[in-house]
Amino acid sequence: MATEATQEAPEAYDALLDHYETISNINGASGILSWDQEVMMPEGGTPARSKQKSALSSVSHDLLTEEQVGEWLDELADADLTGEQEAVVREIRRQYERADRVPSDLVAEISEKTSEAHPKWKEAREEDDFSIFAPVLEDLIELKKEYANHIDPDADPYEVLFADYEPYLDLETAEQVLERLRDELVPLIDDIRESDAELADPFTGEFDVDTQEDLARDVLDTLGYDWEHGRLDTAPHPFSSGNQFDARVTTRFDPEKPVDAFMSTIHEFGHARYTLGLPRDQFGSPLGESRDLTVHESQSRLWENHVGRSRVFWEKFLPAVKERFPQVEGTPEEAYEAANEVHENNLIRVEADELTYHMHIVVRFEIERELIEGDLDVEDVPEVWNDKYEEYLGIRPENDAEGCLQDIHWSHGSFGYFPTYSLGSVLAAQIYDALVEDVGDVDEKVRDGDFDVIADWLESNVHSHGARYTTPELIEEATGKAFTADYFLDYATEKYTELYDL
Amino acid sequence: MATEATQEAPEAYDALLDHYETISNINGASGILSWDQEVMMPEGGTPARSKQKSALSSVSHDLLTEEQVGEWLDELADADLTGEQEAVVREIRRQYERADRVPSDLVAEISEKTSEAHPKWKEAREEDDFSIFAPVLEDLIELKKEYANHIDPDADPYEVLFADYEPYLDLETAEQVLERLRDELVPLIDDIRESDAELADPFTGEFDVDTQEDLARDVLDTLGYDWEHGRLDTAPHPFSSGNQFDARVTTRFDPEKPVDAFMSTIHEFGHARYTLGLPRDQFGSPLGESRDLTVHESQSRLWENHVGRSRVFWEKFLPAVKERFPQVEGTPEEAYEAANEVHENNLIRVEADELTYHMHIVVRFEIERELIEGDLDVEDVPEVWNDKYEEYLGIRPENDAEGCLQDIHWSHGSFGYFPTYSLGSVLAAQIYDALVEDVGDVDEKVRDGDFDVIADWLESNVHSHGARYTTPELIEEATGKAFTADYFLDYATEKYTELYDL
Repeated sequence: MATEATQEAPEAYDALLDHYETISNINGASGILSWDQEVMMPEGGTPARSKQKSALSSVSHDLLTEEQVGEWLDELADADLTGEQEAVVREIRRQYERADRVPSDLVAEISEKTSEAHPKWKEAREEDDFSIFAPVLEDLIELKKEYANHIDPDADPYEVLFADYEPYLDLETAEQVLERLRDELVPLIDDIRESDAELADPFTGEFDVDTQEDLARDVLDTLGYDWEHGRLDTAPHPFSSGNQFDARVTTRFDPEKPVDAFMSTIHEFGHARYTLGLPRDQFGSPLGESRDLTVHESQSRLWENHVGRSRVFWEKFLPAVKERFPQVEGTPEEAYEAANEVHENNLIRVEADELTYHMHIVVRFEIERELIEGDLDVEDVPEVWNDKYEEYLGIRPENDAEGCLQDIHWSHGSFGYFPTYSLGSVLAAQIYDALVEDVGDVDEKVRDGDFDVIADWLESNVHSHGARYTTPELIEEATGKAFTADYFLDYATEKYTELYDL
Repeated sequence: MATEATQEAPEAYDALLDHYETISNINGASGILSWDQEVMMPEGGTPARSKQKSALSSVSHDLLTEEQVGEWLDELADADLTGEQEAVVREIRRQYERADRVPSDLVAEISEKTSEAHPKWKEAREEDDFSIFAPVLEDLIELKKEYANHIDPDADPYEVLFADYEPYLDLETAEQVLERLRDELVPLIDDIRESDAELADPFTGEFDVDTQEDLARDVLDTLGYDWEHGRLDTAPHPFSSGNQFDARVTTRFDPEKPVDAFMSTIHEFGHARYTLGLPRDQFGSPLGESRDLTVHESQSRLWENHVGRSRVFWEKFLPAVKERFPQVEGTPEEAYEAANEVHENNLIRVEADELTYHMHIVVRFEIERELIEGDLDVEDVPEVWNDKYEEYLGIRPENDAEGCLQDIHWSHGSFGYFPTYSLGSVLAAQIYDALVEDVGDVDEKVRDGDFDVIADWLESNVHSHGARYTTPELIEEATGKAFTADYFLDYATEKYTELYDL
């Protein structure tokens, strides 16, 4: 189909797509360099690696903003294109416009400022002193507002920044979802805090890290990870990256938290499985690229939460755990409880359970939004942060290191990224519901070890579309409905009400 | 000094160097992609990786041949430059001219033809049928002659191709060296074949591959490899790659050949040590890049042969071997013998000992030279190959798989590469002699485990110059003499005469 479309396409289309393929390959190369830096590179390699990555990024930017790209796009504005071709042009146009509207001086200034911000943030966190980070954070906010203003002077600057991570969901929708999470989960979390229920935990003691790695490979085998097109490594901050031919997973191991390692592995598998499900014959075209962060995160969360934290998963997988770790005793039900315990006193986002996680996000979203709108001074961040934790989670950080300095994102100048984590979870529930609606008794199949039924459905309904549809279109296409928090809230309420006897 | 020079430089110089840094970083990124492909990439990643590498190579080529590069070079032709600046301009000019003179159609055609040649070569080798490879080899030869003709229509085409790997040693010098190796080593090898001497071999039996890897790390520790700026992995064809901040080593292990793994590790250490000795403050400039293949190979061979295959090395290192492998019995002298045994019946270049190795090279050099000059038909290669093996080494391959199909180089279109292996060995002996001349009793220091004295001398006299000098200038600078085979021939004759009681 794609080939046919290409044959009929206007010359400008072919030229544009060809040019874009080069850009996409340069960006892919940069992704390999990042993977290597996180996973393989000796520490002393940093100075060279920074320069290599910055050369790739500047070459990619130059190619994207070449005059002829604008000319091709102009030519194609009224051309007679197929739906797929229109999608390709839409995606390239969006990237072109965002790159073209921001002066390169500003791009360079932001890049320098983030290089400066990162060590300041690290130092501030180590010293537990927000004032070390505050001045550079203030500068970054100003620069990012300027950046947003270049892209769209008439828009809410936070909305413009949010669109760097999630271009197609409007901020109002996102905000409504996050508000519902806050309004409906806070009382649920309160109830859990007050409940007397004690969940089981068969995973106490020490778990050999090499054996945990074997087990992580077992999990990936069980889920059907394609080792011909992937690999597993460890990284301090687990991530997944690559393309449809080579999508790699990283995880990390803590001798005392084996369940965290399974879950992190399954989460990254979800990302990688999305990437591997992108159409191979569209490699280098937007049709062979994934939709943005909300959809990507929906895939990782679906596998992590709806599969990995389910009862049937533990029925299926606990024997494999016991084989690797004979010290583990207990029933699948107990393992299920352990995988779903709400950590009432946890202050750290990346260690949060499925439920309280969203309150960590809401805090960040509300604060960064006010920072960008100019409604909150940087110096007041620590207090507001702590107040919100108290309000939403009933706990108050005792210092900024475990409070507003815990995440790296702002030091990268990433404002508008956080919400996509929660939006992804919410979407995961909606997609999982559609999947069950479509294929029937998924639990039965998981119990039989048939995870392909899930992967195949996701591939057909989500992955294989690449960036053919915008996020709302893709959600509609895959689930038959507009984006809504209903499914997630129902799922979470039912699950935790039952778990905690509420 | 470099900073001072840059401040005084004409504007065109700064612009040129700045532009070159981007090119150099793109090429560096491509090097990481190649390392990853050999060492880490899952097999299924190939289609994407090929496109990424080809995008980088085409972007790098486009940047190098931009019109303004020619203009800057013109402007700088008569400019008043420091010696270092002149060297920078010389190196960039050379690359620019070679890239600019070859039409991009021809570059693309050669690239396609080598993509086609590689599987044909593989198939031919597997089927032991040269006729499968012959037609594509013929095409490649024609294309490379055309390529050479574009670069310099008045020159001997083989000389032009040789200059892709060794640009500054003239072919006449190279040829004289190779002829002397042939004329003086063939009789020595004959004598060894006729001698009754039996060398010891304390390394018989099976050697656990993981323990071999530990031992390879011991060797690298002993030699002073900087793990902050490097790493060791395994690869089917060991290589080293990287830059002065991150120079990595690969090796391979065979349970029956532990000495091969040490030697291969030491060899690659020599390459990496050269790379790590390049000046860091010149990263991205030709002054921070290594000289070409002859000099690079001289560094690996110096460490492999003059250090790793020496008596004192085994005095120092054998105890570490015995600690890892208690099964090893014998004296350092016996280990020394094992590391230097001449394999009289070996037909395979990469498994050859220090001495017969050069005959493998001479065969290839003589054949590829005649192929490019048009004095030999492709179809006659197998017979000529076998005849030459018989003449120089006294053995005749029984099939083409272990004859003229054993090496990958020609399928890559690499004609003129092979000689640099031998030239590197020859240069290693000359440099080692200068080192001993300069620092005195190197054996004594090796016995004390002081390998830094060697590394530091090489860094001062070879590495730190980057590409400041041409190859002959660098040889003169480091050794005080013009390039000569004298030192290697003396060294080899003395060593093997003694070993084999000739």
